[in-house]
Amino acid sequence: MKIPYTQLKAEFLRVLLKNGFNADTAEQCATIFAGNSRDGVYSHGLNRFPGFIEYVHEGLVKPNEKPTLFNVLGLIEQWDGNRAPGVINATFCTDRAIVLAKQHGIGCVAIRNTNHWMRGGVYGQQAADAGCLAICFTNTIANVPPWGGIDPRLGNNPLVIAVPKQGGHVVLDMAMSQYSFGKLLQYRANNNEALPLPGGYDEAGNLSTDADAILKSKRVVPVGFWKGSGLTLMLDLLATILSRGNSTEKITDTDRESGVSQVFICIHEPDAALVEHFTEQIIAYTKTSRPEKEGGSIAYPGEGMLKTRMRNLAEGIPVNESIWNKLLSL
Amino acid sequence: MKIPYTQLKAEFLRVLLKNGFNADTAEQCATIFAGNSRDGVYSHGLNRFPGFIEYVHEGLVKPNEKPTLFNVLGLIEQWDGNRAPGVINATFCTDRAIVLAKQHGIGCVAIRNTNHWMRGGVYGQQAADAGCLAICFTNTIANVPPWGGIDPRLGNNPLVIAVPKQGGHVVLDMAMSQYSFGKLLQYRANNNEALPLPGGYDEAGNLSTDADAILKSKRVVPVGFWKGSGLTLMLDLLATILSRGNSTEKITDTDRESGVSQVFICIHEPDAALVEHFTEQIIAYTKTSRPEKEGGSIAYPGEGMLKTRMRNLAEGIPVNESIWNKLLSL
Repeated sequence: MKIPYTQLKAEFLRVLLKNGFNADTAEQCATIFAGNSRDGVYSHGLNRFPGFIEYVHEGLVKPNEKPTLFNVLGLIEQWDGNRAPGVINATFCTDRAIVLAKQHGIGCVAIRNTNHWMRGGVYGQQAADAGCLAICFTNTIANVPPWGGIDPRLGNNPLVIAVPKQGGHVVLDMAMSQYSFGKLLQYRANNNEALPLPGGYDEAGNLSTDADAILKSKRVVPVGFWKGSGLTLMLDLLATILSRGNSTEKITDTDRESGVSQVFICIHEPDAALVEHFTEQIIAYTKTSRPEKEGGSIAYPGEGMLKTRMRNLAEGIPVNESIWNKLLSL
Repeated sequence: MKIPYTQLKAEFLRVLLKNGFNADTAEQCATIFAGNSRDGVYSHGLNRFPGFIEYVHEGLVKPNEKPTLFNVLGLIEQWDGNRAPGVINATFCTDRAIVLAKQHGIGCVAIRNTNHWMRGGVYGQQAADAGCLAICFTNTIANVPPWGGIDPRLGNNPLVIAVPKQGGHVVLDMAMSQYSFGKLLQYRANNNEALPLPGGYDEAGNLSTDADAILKSKRVVPVGFWKGSGLTLMLDLLATILSRGNSTEKITDTDRESGVSQVFICIHEPDAALVEHFTEQIIAYTKTSRPEKEGGSIAYPGEGMLKTRMRNLAEGIPVNESIWNKLLSL
């Protein structure tokens, strides 16, 4: 089933206004949620929207709050998100980091007590649209065991790195688990089709491509095994320290993924032609690697997104019918 | 065979002085190379030293050059390394980033035309010793195929993230390939013992734990497969753009890993007690994960290093006898 972008956005808007969002914040939230589905990130568009509204009902997301500056460390700004919608806080922080970067070359904005930013790539695109390079990350609830352990004590703490490029920015948006839970659920639902690569351990402790077994053991693997375990720990340390906010532990204690900590670093090289030159050169070189499969090609992070966007705008956005009906009933 | 730290350092010093290093730079290089072996990173201590001297003979490493500032972008400093020894340039850049961070909260120093920094963790330790958080990375020669390709077009671009902690800083030092070439050679030398986890593809394109087969195909896997492929590309983009230096392509064109590009970001939170509080709390929580193996434990990045240092200082540094003899002959 396919729904036009404008219709999807209009439905989000209707539900947000009904749930106490003022016109501005409703418009901003509807645009980002609809944009995520439009760009092919359904897990953080329509599919996540009912859960987002549930968080509003539970008081974990406060529709019309605004972030407040509670401290500055030189050029680092430390904000409290006041539990406003994560997408609005993250857009705001990216804007602030862009302003600082344009003034000082580099800007760093940390925020605590914010909420899930949904698709992190949005803020990488935002920075790149403004001609900035960006490094952004968030912590999450514990969902990955540390290397050598079996109980989840680390978040999968998504990391975003963006570089502007004409014709489509280079935007990496990666969580630190090899597969997201959404992806594992999708494989399980599809006759428990084998994962293309090991995604975790089964309950006997064997590396496995069996999504059902991994969901049962709750032992997903971090990217690069011990390496990603270390990297995701470092991101929690940086996000918590820089925002003086909740660590993965404190988020996990509440059993709800709310009140998270995030960091937005933007860098501005005013010579856009120079950035374009280096970026084109590096991408072109990477693409000279012979493809593994005949007819295959090497893509850069974010390359496929614009194609999906064009197709979904032209043909409508594929939606899960039961989630679409759920949205209509909200 | 074990050699006391002081003797190892004295031998390095002797060879450096003989090869045109002045007293100061010889002392600094000898300290870092000997420190790398002392801390258990033999691959970037003694084992790498003869290759380093070879680069000096070839004119790729210029013993007594100093970096020069060629541009500033607000608070970002852009230096030319003038092919000075990488360890000296990296120490210098870390110092500059610390100074900037203590003045402005955050400091970013980029350097081009520098050389291999050997163990990146050294600069993370240096920043943490100064009470700073740090994010540092370097590009390298192409040694990893991009995801979906078979020819190496990406570096394994090591990334260092550091957070100060009493009793041993938290310092992640990770290259973007699952296993280093040094590690693969070590497994091959040891009766081609199977890798604990897949480290690349064999020539038939199958994921493999056979070090010999991976060395033959030259298809090592990046950490997290497609994810690390994207991450290491982004690090090359950032390092090249910020330093206006050589990309992995340009380094690879010369067939010698020289003239690389690096970035050093330091962040200073003046409230050291607050950093300590968050760090202790996060580490303690991570360690509550039940160990996979009976009697096992969860370690944080950098935790084992101080133990190795103490043991090697007390008992001497394990050295490969033939490399030790090679050093004596230089």
